[in-house]
Amino acid sequence: MDETPFPARVLAAVAAKRGPVVVGLDPRPERLPRDLIEWGRQRHPDTRRATAAAVGAFDRLIIDAVHDVAVAVKPQLAFYEQLGWPGIQILEETMSYARRKGLLVIADGKRNDIGSTAVAYARAYLGVGGEESGLVADALTVNPYLGTDSIEPFLPACRRGKGVFVLVRTSNPSGAELQDYPADSPGAETVAQRVARMVLRLNEGLPAAGGFGPVGAVVGATTPEHAARLRRELPGVLFLVPGYGAQGAGAAEAANAFVKGGGALVNSSRDILYAWEREHPGEPGTADDFAQAARGAALRMRDALAAAAACGRNARLDSESTLKFAASKE
Amino acid sequence: MDETPFPARVLAAVAAKRGPVVVGLDPRPERLPRDLIEWGRQRHPDTRRATAAAVGAFDRLIIDAVHDVAVAVKPQLAFYEQLGWPGIQILEETMSYARRKGLLVIADGKRNDIGSTAVAYARAYLGVGGEESGLVADALTVNPYLGTDSIEPFLPACRRGKGVFVLVRTSNPSGAELQDYPADSPGAETVAQRVARMVLRLNEGLPAAGGFGPVGAVVGATTPEHAARLRRELPGVLFLVPGYGAQGAGAAEAANAFVKGGGALVNSSRDILYAWEREHPGEPGTADDFAQAARGAALRMRDALAAAAACGRNARLDSESTLKFAASKE
Repeated sequence: MDETPFPARVLAAVAAKRGPVVVGLDPRPERLPRDLIEWGRQRHPDTRRATAAAVGAFDRLIIDAVHDVAVAVKPQLAFYEQLGWPGIQILEETMSYARRKGLLVIADGKRNDIGSTAVAYARAYLGVGGEESGLVADALTVNPYLGTDSIEPFLPACRRGKGVFVLVRTSNPSGAELQDYPADSPGAETVAQRVARMVLRLNEGLPAAGGFGPVGAVVGATTPEHAARLRRELPGVLFLVPGYGAQGAGAAEAANAFVKGGGALVNSSRDILYAWEREHPGEPGTADDFAQAARGAALRMRDALAAAAACGRNARLDSESTLKFAASKE
Repeated sequence: MDETPFPARVLAAVAAKRGPVVVGLDPRPERLPRDLIEWGRQRHPDTRRATAAAVGAFDRLIIDAVHDVAVAVKPQLAFYEQLGWPGIQILEETMSYARRKGLLVIADGKRNDIGSTAVAYARAYLGVGGEESGLVADALTVNPYLGTDSIEPFLPACRRGKGVFVLVRTSNPSGAELQDYPADSPGAETVAQRVARMVLRLNEGLPAAGGFGPVGAVVGATTPEHAARLRRELPGVLFLVPGYGAQGAGAAEAANAFVKGGGALVNSSRDILYAWEREHPGEPGTADDFAQAARGAALRMRDALAAAAACGRNARLDSESTLKFAASKE
């Protein structure tokens, strides 16, 4: 196991790939190219296994198409779980294939539970403290509703090269309900800010790199004002930014998550996986069509983020908040 | 698929089994009876598959021992995920075996995500809207941090005989951090109370039975004052109560979750699964020893809960809060 601190591996990958693009693997069986579905059916008479085989082939296709552009893939575990054990078997193969192709793997499971069960999740997805599950990723997304003692079981893995991303402010419309509460009390800390402080505390004493700790934060790009504020409050925290593309945020919004042009991974799922469909509505595509469209979308996303980051870097050097942040760090 | 409303199935099961005992399946490989581990090893040279086989045998042993005492089993998904796909394959077999033995199955995954991913979790664990995953349970535990739109994708299943239990106030020490916030503002709604109102709203228009809707609440027994207050605030909501036994709560604490002696399922995991170890410290037990001890522990739990419920029923009839609640319902 590579025990280089997780943030060091992230920063090296961002430098090597010239951008922070993460490709979310949300393989929806009903949207896969028809030739892959047909190929799966020929392989397995059982529907679940046939679908799982097609999903695996699709994942490899996408990984081949983006492996030199993206920093990481982020398999969304729900899409594998809905296929039962054959889905999990394919997930293991996808994770292993991505790693061989030089990609980091962020398991997007938003797992959460109390002490001893959180330990089992840490074993499952970060591979520390138990037998190899076959599902070991570089990082796992986790939910903070249960509090600090539900995240602490992941910290031993964070001392050994792994990372977690704690949900802080999510990109969905109802994200505000609990996360921005109490919104109406001026000056009162919101739940998301409280979680942000938890993330800061959890990083204390853990191996850092480039000023970033291994406990990151999920901060949606669709609410840029939150991203900008949390970025100021958490300068030493890696952000994982969902919401790019299909969920409505563009590079300018995502750039709110950057510190001096970096420190954030930006995820796009559907906009890359199904770029063919968006670009050729109503026209069934082959596996090759999907792959070429996905690569094009990933390249455009990388370029757009680079432009926004450069722009943001200049803008920030002039802004009062960044000057304050810079002063406080010196 | 049985489309009888989930609360009707729960109430019928509680009546038939004469109590609300739920047995949590937390199969920890390091604590399984040695003869089962040995049996697994002889079956499979591969460690993961050997362990998974032993876990499956242990689950069947426990199910056989408690099926006429317990209402439901609650597999804790993390313990299966840590074994990779062979663990998920065994989980499918365990869920199917429990159903054949007349038990409800509550998948304890505390899943949570935004819209389209939550739909995939609903397909995976509640089996509505997609192919059969093999992992379809009667109910799933879900985490509310992402807000209403992350729970709504489970409601179509709740119209068709399934249930969810939303985490409201959990039993772990750090549960207070977010869930009781803001604790210091007298009169201000806490996050847990806000989630409680969300649960009430989500139940509107869904098929109910005995006054209970299919959207339940997870309310820990280790903080009885919260359980009692939430019980008053949510009279028409089924509670799933963890924390009995190993986590420190007894029948009297759990009884705070009852309405007129009912309306709550009470879970015990380690105290039942590993009752042999507690009763015979340091003495290795066989599978039969574990089974007999588990049955004894489940029977004692059922009797203790029945006594506490009867006592609570009488106490409540005298208490002002219950009289108020009774008056408000008439």
